[in-house]
Amino acid sequence: MDDDGLAGPTPTGALLTDLYQLTMGYGYWKSARHNRRSVFHLFFRKTPFGGGFAVAAGIGPALDWLANFQVTSSDIAYLATLSGNDGKPLFDQPFLNAIGDMRLEVDVDAVDEGSVVFAHEPLMRISGPLWQCQWIETALLAIVNFQTLIATKAARICHAAGGEDVLEFGLRRAQGVDGGLSASRAAYIGGCAATSNVLAGKLYGIPVRGTHAHSWVMSFDTELEAFEHYAAAMPNNCVFLVDTYNTIVGVHNAIKIGRKLEKLGRRMVGVRLDSGDLAALSIQARQLLDASGFQDARIVASNDLDEYRIQTLKHEGAKISLWGVGTRLVTGGDQGALGGVYKLASIEDGQGKMQPCIKLSQDAVKTSTPGVQQVRRYFHGDQISHDVIYDPSLAIPFVNDACCVTLMGSSSDQSPTDHHVELLSPVMRNGTRLGNQPSLIQVRQAAIDQVGKLPVTFRQLSCDRAFDVLLEPQLWQLKQSLIEEAKADSTSVIHGPATR
Amino acid sequence: MDDDGLAGPTPTGALLTDLYQLTMGYGYWKSARHNRRSVFHLFFRKTPFGGGFAVAAGIGPALDWLANFQVTSSDIAYLATLSGNDGKPLFDQPFLNAIGDMRLEVDVDAVDEGSVVFAHEPLMRISGPLWQCQWIETALLAIVNFQTLIATKAARICHAAGGEDVLEFGLRRAQGVDGGLSASRAAYIGGCAATSNVLAGKLYGIPVRGTHAHSWVMSFDTELEAFEHYAAAMPNNCVFLVDTYNTIVGVHNAIKIGRKLEKLGRRMVGVRLDSGDLAALSIQARQLLDASGFQDARIVASNDLDEYRIQTLKHEGAKISLWGVGTRLVTGGDQGALGGVYKLASIEDGQGKMQPCIKLSQDAVKTSTPGVQQVRRYFHGDQISHDVIYDPSLAIPFVNDACCVTLMGSSSDQSPTDHHVELLSPVMRNGTRLGNQPSLIQVRQAAIDQVGKLPVTFRQLSCDRAFDVLLEPQLWQLKQSLIEEAKADSTSVIHGPATR
Repeated sequence: MDDDGLAGPTPTGALLTDLYQLTMGYGYWKSARHNRRSVFHLFFRKTPFGGGFAVAAGIGPALDWLANFQVTSSDIAYLATLSGNDGKPLFDQPFLNAIGDMRLEVDVDAVDEGSVVFAHEPLMRISGPLWQCQWIETALLAIVNFQTLIATKAARICHAAGGEDVLEFGLRRAQGVDGGLSASRAAYIGGCAATSNVLAGKLYGIPVRGTHAHSWVMSFDTELEAFEHYAAAMPNNCVFLVDTYNTIVGVHNAIKIGRKLEKLGRRMVGVRLDSGDLAALSIQARQLLDASGFQDARIVASNDLDEYRIQTLKHEGAKISLWGVGTRLVTGGDQGALGGVYKLASIEDGQGKMQPCIKLSQDAVKTSTPGVQQVRRYFHGDQISHDVIYDPSLAIPFVNDACCVTLMGSSSDQSPTDHHVELLSPVMRNGTRLGNQPSLIQVRQAAIDQVGKLPVTFRQLSCDRAFDVLLEPQLWQLKQSLIEEAKADSTSVIHGPATR
Repeated sequence: MDDDGLAGPTPTGALLTDLYQLTMGYGYWKSARHNRRSVFHLFFRKTPFGGGFAVAAGIGPALDWLANFQVTSSDIAYLATLSGNDGKPLFDQPFLNAIGDMRLEVDVDAVDEGSVVFAHEPLMRISGPLWQCQWIETALLAIVNFQTLIATKAARICHAAGGEDVLEFGLRRAQGVDGGLSASRAAYIGGCAATSNVLAGKLYGIPVRGTHAHSWVMSFDTELEAFEHYAAAMPNNCVFLVDTYNTIVGVHNAIKIGRKLEKLGRRMVGVRLDSGDLAALSIQARQLLDASGFQDARIVASNDLDEYRIQTLKHEGAKISLWGVGTRLVTGGDQGALGGVYKLASIEDGQGKMQPCIKLSQDAVKTSTPGVQQVRRYFHGDQISHDVIYDPSLAIPFVNDACCVTLMGSSSDQSPTDHHVELLSPVMRNGTRLGNQPSLIQVRQAAIDQVGKLPVTFRQLSCDRAFDVLLEPQLWQLKQSLIEEAKADSTSVIHGPATR
């Protein structure tokens, strides 16, 4: 912990969970099945924002949370105060003692943070004692859902910006303090060049950027005086915000101060537009700057930008070279949550044997996939071709992927591929993290590289086609047989008498 | 700080700010105007969600952040690493020494947390040294914007639920850990009865609720066995989730276990529906429960609910008595940010005199209001009638409110009122908090009471009419004269030559 009382990016308390995880834990414990081994997968069912991919993020912070998991005496004291509908304690003392002594013993396999991922494939696989796997569900979802959402949004915005730098300016409208902090982290992973959030700079080493606001200009008698004082104080960080009163006047004022800077051997970085018709104003500003010898001055734009607005501005010929994106990046804009889920896929039975299981849904695509899942990704040359979900315990040696089927059961027609990789790798065993943790800059580079390996169709802002995520045939068979079994079970029960 | 390493609800670091606040601070300091007294207001320009009101929240945590403001040695060390476009340090050492010695000296006046508020009126007024007021902008906005958004969303959802209890279940899809925590706090202020978030329960004393998930059912061979074990473990907390396989079968199974509980002198609380046609299923479930003697069993519904969905379900005759609302509550759903701003309204000039100021905008309603603002709220009996923004330094004794004008300058036609209150009161002087801080439960009660005093029109989910927020005539005159002045200034500059 830092000397400033910050717990770092993410609070580490074990009580960051839903109460029902603990009431279930209590039930498992009372039923003496809390230590049954279980396997859960964390995945989402739909790529966000109507796009064709997602960038997995939050894996590192989620593992940090697991590694620091500890039930403290004050946690126990709090839980002892909870009561049920008879006013009596919800949890008995032996259970509270047991969780006080709990040490997390889970195994985790996960995709590398920054990986490109698709609907229905596991981002994380958690195995371990049932009550522990259940307890940790909420925090893993909270951390991974949000950061994956924002890293994906950032990748889309960077795609729209077509290689020009995107700056994340969102803290003031983020969803809570950590909503801002973790959004800055995820936005950087997704490809943003820098953030305005100083704390994110300090905690994560993300480059920080910023110059001045309207209030700077308003605090002087004239705009020119304001720019002059700014340049005197910070000659090496001059981006003048030109729209406090009249944008074109502002550009003229910036040019005047830019000339003074030149005489001192300094360089004006550029101007920022924050209101009005950004396309027209940027074209005018570019002409004025160029005509005055400031061809290298950059034009920064901000004001409710997102990937769609950037695409439109580029289409309108805007002369913008740096994009400041705030609210719609850090909150997800049109989609505020990823909707990732965490589903039980296998559980130890009374005889110590692992039994795959499913959750049925009227919506067939929401019926979960059973088994201990791994994902194999196939490539054509440098380009990602398709992914296959399989259960290594069913399918080793791996069968020919030509026989794989889609999640809805149709056969798949894949052209030959030349290599493949497995997406999930061991990152935690018995509660201890394994291996070296990548730096944030490595994670960011991985994300940029992987998005670059996506077929163009799946990189577009709007993508109607789902990327091919297939089921290996034996796993498909297992799923079908479990669906039949569950339907038979519930049918038999449905016909049972409901007499008193 | 707690023994579990949690920094509490909100990290307290001074670096929770945008870099431009610090570069401006540096500029003010280099220009020897950092200690000029300034006045900023925090307000929003549009009530969220297309509704007619907002519930102010986050004021307490924002004041906590201010009260704990401290620039640490590690903050200084980090800022010393930042550089400009010449590779040289952004900040010089004397400045870093100066901020290391900084003690926050701001005064804050704020509306009571839980107050009903409207567009354009100040939620907080910050006065103090210019560089300090600027520095703290970002954190105040981040905290107040989000909590006000969520408290308002909660109030709308509770309104739709028509007095039935609403439970907040959102942590897993919240925007970051503190996005979840502060959403739980704000949702409670807005009227929710409880949260699933155990940490929010521990930190804020919010009631917590939870029973079991689908995975509980899936971990047993049959649903009946699962309910039976749950009831054995937690007979005082039995809400059975009935839709893992087949909802109606699930209700029959719950009834079977409910009878067993009865024989033990226990009471089943109810059943939860989490998928399918909630209206039809709840009607069927209600019939089955009633026919079996469980008239008092509650039917809890969840699954992508929000105020619109609840309204529709009620219209369809759903027999739901408890609403579990998650994602769309804690993220704001259709609107993910409030868009509150923080605008300079008055600043000390070189002669030590306070000068009111404005920020112009092409969109007239976005032109800021100058002066040191207070809000007077008028009532007809128990009902809120209208609000008037005034500057006490211009308008004491207060003029007859019959002469007030709307923000757009039209005259206002108010019927007589019988009493009024001032909304802003002193909560911090010279960096020190004043008075007693209300408990969260008091804040929640205030919000519920105030929403109840709104004219019905403004409580509806969709409200086309803006509540009357008027300007006192002298303040209106001041604003007009400053607008004229600013326009004249920028015109004179616009005609100036832009030669090299």
